[in-house]
Amino acid sequence: MNTPDLIAALRAEAREAPDSGIFQVIDHARGRDGVLPLWVGEGDLPTPGFIADAASRSLEHGETFYTDQRGIPALRKALARYHQRFYGREFPPERFFVTGSGMQAVQIAARMVAGRGDEVVVPTPSWPNIAAAVSIAGARAVSVPLEFAGRGWRLDLERLFAAVGPRTRALFINSPANPTGWTATADDITAIVDFCDRRGLWIIADEVYHRFHYADGRAASFYDHTAPDQRVLYINTFSKNWAMTGWRVGWISAPPALGQVIENLIQYSTSGVAVFMQRAAVAALDNGEQFIGEQVGRARQGREIVCGRLAATGRTRLAEPSGAFYLLFGIEGENDARVLALRLVDEARIGLAPGDAFGLGGEGFLRLCFARQASGLSDAMDRLTGWLAER
Amino acid sequence: MNTPDLIAALRAEAREAPDSGIFQVIDHARGRDGVLPLWVGEGDLPTPGFIADAASRSLEHGETFYTDQRGIPALRKALARYHQRFYGREFPPERFFVTGSGMQAVQIAARMVAGRGDEVVVPTPSWPNIAAAVSIAGARAVSVPLEFAGRGWRLDLERLFAAVGPRTRALFINSPANPTGWTATADDITAIVDFCDRRGLWIIADEVYHRFHYADGRAASFYDHTAPDQRVLYINTFSKNWAMTGWRVGWISAPPALGQVIENLIQYSTSGVAVFMQRAAVAALDNGEQFIGEQVGRARQGREIVCGRLAATGRTRLAEPSGAFYLLFGIEGENDARVLALRLVDEARIGLAPGDAFGLGGEGFLRLCFARQASGLSDAMDRLTGWLAER
Repeated sequence: MNTPDLIAALRAEAREAPDSGIFQVIDHARGRDGVLPLWVGEGDLPTPGFIADAASRSLEHGETFYTDQRGIPALRKALARYHQRFYGREFPPERFFVTGSGMQAVQIAARMVAGRGDEVVVPTPSWPNIAAAVSIAGARAVSVPLEFAGRGWRLDLERLFAAVGPRTRALFINSPANPTGWTATADDITAIVDFCDRRGLWIIADEVYHRFHYADGRAASFYDHTAPDQRVLYINTFSKNWAMTGWRVGWISAPPALGQVIENLIQYSTSGVAVFMQRAAVAALDNGEQFIGEQVGRARQGREIVCGRLAATGRTRLAEPSGAFYLLFGIEGENDARVLALRLVDEARIGLAPGDAFGLGGEGFLRLCFARQASGLSDAMDRLTGWLAER
Repeated sequence: MNTPDLIAALRAEAREAPDSGIFQVIDHARGRDGVLPLWVGEGDLPTPGFIADAASRSLEHGETFYTDQRGIPALRKALARYHQRFYGREFPPERFFVTGSGMQAVQIAARMVAGRGDEVVVPTPSWPNIAAAVSIAGARAVSVPLEFAGRGWRLDLERLFAAVGPRTRALFINSPANPTGWTATADDITAIVDFCDRRGLWIIADEVYHRFHYADGRAASFYDHTAPDQRVLYINTFSKNWAMTGWRVGWISAPPALGQVIENLIQYSTSGVAVFMQRAAVAALDNGEQFIGEQVGRARQGREIVCGRLAATGRTRLAEPSGAFYLLFGIEGENDARVLALRLVDEARIGLAPGDAFGLGGEGFLRLCFARQASGLSDAMDRLTGWLAER
């Protein structure tokens, strides 16, 4: 069969799954030398040796067989310890479910609460894979755009709640947020929790960037304002905190009563995560605090460099993000971010992600990942400000 | 919220995903010592060192970053070489897509061709995860039971084709088959291909057990009787041939024209497979033939042991399977396989999977995996025949 016929023969939900707007830029740059890649959400450090070594040791010991679909007990216990340390309260190991990436955690959570005819409300701009996972599940992601004001990105809670209709089954709240850095306050969270409780809605809480928070204290969490058996599904990943992007290991935290359903959805997606990966994840949780501290320090410095250099040009729209490790910024007079991102690859040899890839509200902005070495970021800023100076 | 309320608040497709009937027996045996585990589809050998070492080396080299959603080029080329060697014709690397397990390959293939309102026809008894993946995608798996005759399991093609209705989008053909060992002949395959072509149906070809074939020559393949751009999606895994069950790496082989759709579905499921896993998969494909030969030899011997010992009791219903590495057999006078499987754990300390976990046609049968060491299988047969002798 020819290509159009083959594709037409596919199911619409599959055929219509959007291409990633981030990868369009990456594909454009393929084969071009010397492009500084600030487009994807990962740092420039490989996984620390003490984590990788735990996987290698496990492989040597022959831990290569099928295992528990919910995760090995050692990892579920390590997750409980980690949460206990960080949030300062008790967590039972039974509420943690190991997934084959944070992405899979999103996919499973979406599928648990929404399908054909349902809606999930998502503040945008947001990681595009969220809306895609919702739509592949047959449901519709309803965007609520944040607004960029001089002092940062703002989520209007009235507008968020007004987007909820009779078909809404869940709110998807990512805080600190990719790509805006928006971070929910404790007041935001209690308002959202109260609203969802009143309306019988699920909350999918994406607190993946929780460790990357630049004000004092830690970012407010849904854990602080909900009971353990409330309708909240937390999705998370080892990717960011422990420089394990390539590993594809994440977790869901949920009321243990949902265990069998989550186990079944894991079973019928990828049937569990390799034991040797899980051993590495245990090492990360138990011995990774120093590394996280260094990562966050690096991101904090990166944030100062990029915000400082770009603000100094007087030709950008930006505010220092309060969390996560991205800057979503605009360049004066440039409204088509997709075209601009391709030009910056060609003309400034710098790789940024176009803001419209992140949905409503991102148009005209560019996303830059600053979880990188200071010198590389300074180089990138030289190129970008140099390019700007020539306009 | 209490448990029933929490579960009731979930989407039906998720809530109703079936528990695995295999795991019910495994759960029953948890904590009991000395049960010989023949219930799951894996051998007793860990992954060979030359494969595991390739992963460890890659980890040492820091290959821990995001990678190509379709798979690293080196692995896609190695898959092309492997297929070329085995099927004796050319394969372009572009038709191979690396997935996070054979299960994920099934999930993605199901989602590509079937959704709400659609049907997929599946000969049964079959691996239960197939029907589950179809139903989680919102579609319905329509069973066509094979028949057990004295000389083996038989698929009636008339009956298969009669199960196709206006809502049917695909046939799912697993050959050699889990759990029956049924293996399609070249005539079966050409008849199925002709029928599907005439009716505009997809074929999902699960040839995971293709290397485990006990007659002369290799098992007939859909590759032998279709053009490269026909509507066939092949799903496969590294699990069985290379003793990599725990790794969760598989592949889809499909017309390259479908590449972007498959990439998107991978992106929104788990976003790719760890590079260090893929390096191990390359080593498996390029240097694994001797190991596969040994594995198949071991399974052949295992098949003789279990078939011989059980047939000699005169109290079983069985025929030597022509492919895969399972025996699906019945015990005279025992019709409830679920109850029987639990009793055999308690009374004979042997772990078998109940046939009804595999769908229509499997009722009253038990599945045993014989891809194991001869001495372990002999022990298992001692226990089983001993138990039988006491009835």
